[in-house]
Amino acid sequence: MLLNHERLRSAMSAHQLDAIVATAPENVLYTSGFWSLPQWIRRGPQAFVVWTSGEADGQPVVIAGTSTLDLVADQHVAARIRRYGAFPIDHAPSVELDPVSARQAVLHALADDGDAIKALVLEIRQAGLEKGRIGIDEMGLLPGDTERLRSDLPGVTWVMAASVLRNIRAVKTPLEIDRLRTVAAITERSVAAALAIATEGVTEIELSRAFHGQTVREDAVPVLGCIGFGERSALMNVQPSERRLRQGDIIRFDVGGHYCNYRADIARIASLGSPSREIQAKYDALNRGVQRGIELIRPGIAARDVFQAVVETVRREGIAQYQRSHVGHGIGLDGYDAPLLSATSTDVLEEGMIVCIETPYYELGRVGLQVEDMLVVRADGAEMLSNNGTSMTVLG
Amino acid sequence: MLLNHERLRSAMSAHQLDAIVATAPENVLYTSGFWSLPQWIRRGPQAFVVWTSGEADGQPVVIAGTSTLDLVADQHVAARIRRYGAFPIDHAPSVELDPVSARQAVLHALADDGDAIKALVLEIRQAGLEKGRIGIDEMGLLPGDTERLRSDLPGVTWVMAASVLRNIRAVKTPLEIDRLRTVAAITERSVAAALAIATEGVTEIELSRAFHGQTVREDAVPVLGCIGFGERSALMNVQPSERRLRQGDIIRFDVGGHYCNYRADIARIASLGSPSREIQAKYDALNRGVQRGIELIRPGIAARDVFQAVVETVRREGIAQYQRSHVGHGIGLDGYDAPLLSATSTDVLEEGMIVCIETPYYELGRVGLQVEDMLVVRADGAEMLSNNGTSMTVLG
Repeated sequence: MLLNHERLRSAMSAHQLDAIVATAPENVLYTSGFWSLPQWIRRGPQAFVVWTSGEADGQPVVIAGTSTLDLVADQHVAARIRRYGAFPIDHAPSVELDPVSARQAVLHALADDGDAIKALVLEIRQAGLEKGRIGIDEMGLLPGDTERLRSDLPGVTWVMAASVLRNIRAVKTPLEIDRLRTVAAITERSVAAALAIATEGVTEIELSRAFHGQTVREDAVPVLGCIGFGERSALMNVQPSERRLRQGDIIRFDVGGHYCNYRADIARIASLGSPSREIQAKYDALNRGVQRGIELIRPGIAARDVFQAVVETVRREGIAQYQRSHVGHGIGLDGYDAPLLSATSTDVLEEGMIVCIETPYYELGRVGLQVEDMLVVRADGAEMLSNNGTSMTVLG
Repeated sequence: MLLNHERLRSAMSAHQLDAIVATAPENVLYTSGFWSLPQWIRRGPQAFVVWTSGEADGQPVVIAGTSTLDLVADQHVAARIRRYGAFPIDHAPSVELDPVSARQAVLHALADDGDAIKALVLEIRQAGLEKGRIGIDEMGLLPGDTERLRSDLPGVTWVMAASVLRNIRAVKTPLEIDRLRTVAAITERSVAAALAIATEGVTEIELSRAFHGQTVREDAVPVLGCIGFGERSALMNVQPSERRLRQGDIIRFDVGGHYCNYRADIARIASLGSPSREIQAKYDALNRGVQRGIELIRPGIAARDVFQAVVETVRREGIAQYQRSHVGHGIGLDGYDAPLLSATSTDVLEEGMIVCIETPYYELGRVGLQVEDMLVVRADGAEMLSNNGTSMTVLG
């Protein structure tokens, strides 16, 4: 199961919620296992998940568009289902149905609740929560939805709960960690596939094609592909261009796809020819910053203490003027999960959190350097999901 | 230019708008050419574009996060820029800057407006529109943004404008049509790459890998990949599984990536071995429905008239019980642009619209059949961007 059920219960109790409603794609998938295609590829289509504090059978209610009931059936979503909207499918009575189609037929026979908000209102009434305190993930609502909910359920106390769900998601279950381990490894192999063609004259676009090609060969999906050469490595969001690789160029990768919707985000540096002593020294300082952070990672440490130690290490080891807003973040179904390793973060690391620890450095018009690795916070410290090693890759 | 400038002016005039504000990723890109990475890969980061009716220089104002100013510079965004938020980059005065970095340096030197909404409020005040009538794309606002705008600019009359922008986007410029032509062709070649390995025993996942592999080799990005065999071809959103291809199976593709952010959506049917006479007859009926629609496409025809003609043709030609909510839709930066070819649509076709015309048919537990092609509405009728031909592909 993706969901950390214990953490959900504990958060609902701490916030005194009678129910919590997931609306954003990552929260719907996380709390129910339901991946509803339309809400992942455009904004507008909705699916909701309702967990009530009194649920007896350990299952939520999923509110799904009728046009997505095939996915509910095929994904073995363990939930009571409400459906909304019309979607015609044909069904010859003489056809013997396979298990997935049989489940789909049962779901199509449910009453049509009209639209997603109507279905949610019906569900809250049926659960007897017209006067309840209900956490709602505001990030997947559409303009006007809040007004409709307030008008149709005037007795409900609504609590904005996107941050509650984000906090629940911060500590990963073993299945989530497996997926993150897989996607981190795919991303490392995709960097290797790109570097395998990194000779003088290759373009950023060609390297990017090799990178994403490997990602797709391993059944992951391209998401982040910042790959820049030389002065373009200093562009923080660099998008591949026709710039050709030249002797002496630094190549910066800040990259990661997703695998089963779980995201990777790692950074790697390579140099065509030996880097200058100054660039090497800066890289080493950034890498020592990350290594210092990794040493400190353990349950109970404050995220801001990791931030301070990492930034101080980079400054002491070679980049005296080093400035950063953060040196790391969680990752999972979203590319920026909790915790955030920043100067003002109030997050405290917990066992099972995933951290992308990073020390990017952008020198305008000249060079960008960055070390970023993914790790799991374990009882005895960091377990690496990716491993930059101690040095940049020198090519040619 | 992506933007249909004349259409923007005309819509602002028709709705009596003093300004229009784009907030959703597709509208920001469309109205300014600015592709802001963070807002495309997660929900939360914002970028806005403001066009005022009085702009003298033919340029909008772009409101960008400071962490994305490299993209503004690299993409040659032709706009006045406002920036918000802190993002440290280093800049050694001795470094001679390339043109992109020089532009970025100028942008970093702008004042920090604080956050996206504060920047928007400042811009509206500076434009003297505190009492103006302003169209706002509500789909890219975050919870609480509307309240802040109303509170900070109490004299403004706000008009929800997501549908206005969607309507402007419906008629494509030549650059947009070029991109759509490219992505349609890439998608056809990706289907061909998948079919090239479609022999008995191959899995849906393997076919999907071949499909997306070709998409990535042509520098497009995987988005939609519904590929199902046999009884799974009837699952409307089918996601590839370990199901193996068997003699007699139908393969249904409903697929398309994006190229430079422009989307494709086509459907193709293949059969391993000759299809039964009944399946062939149903396929022919669906295909004749699409062909009838293509014949009717011209500027001035009502979308609902195309819908009626297509559905009636399918019914007359072989599927008497055929039911559909729509038989086509626009496509562009969004997978579902206007127009919509449905029974209740009020859309009227215009020259330069792109239509995905389609007749999907799902027979639960048995087979899914679908013909879908992309076309441009031209003065003298449909120009096809993809071409299904008249028959399904018979393999082996």
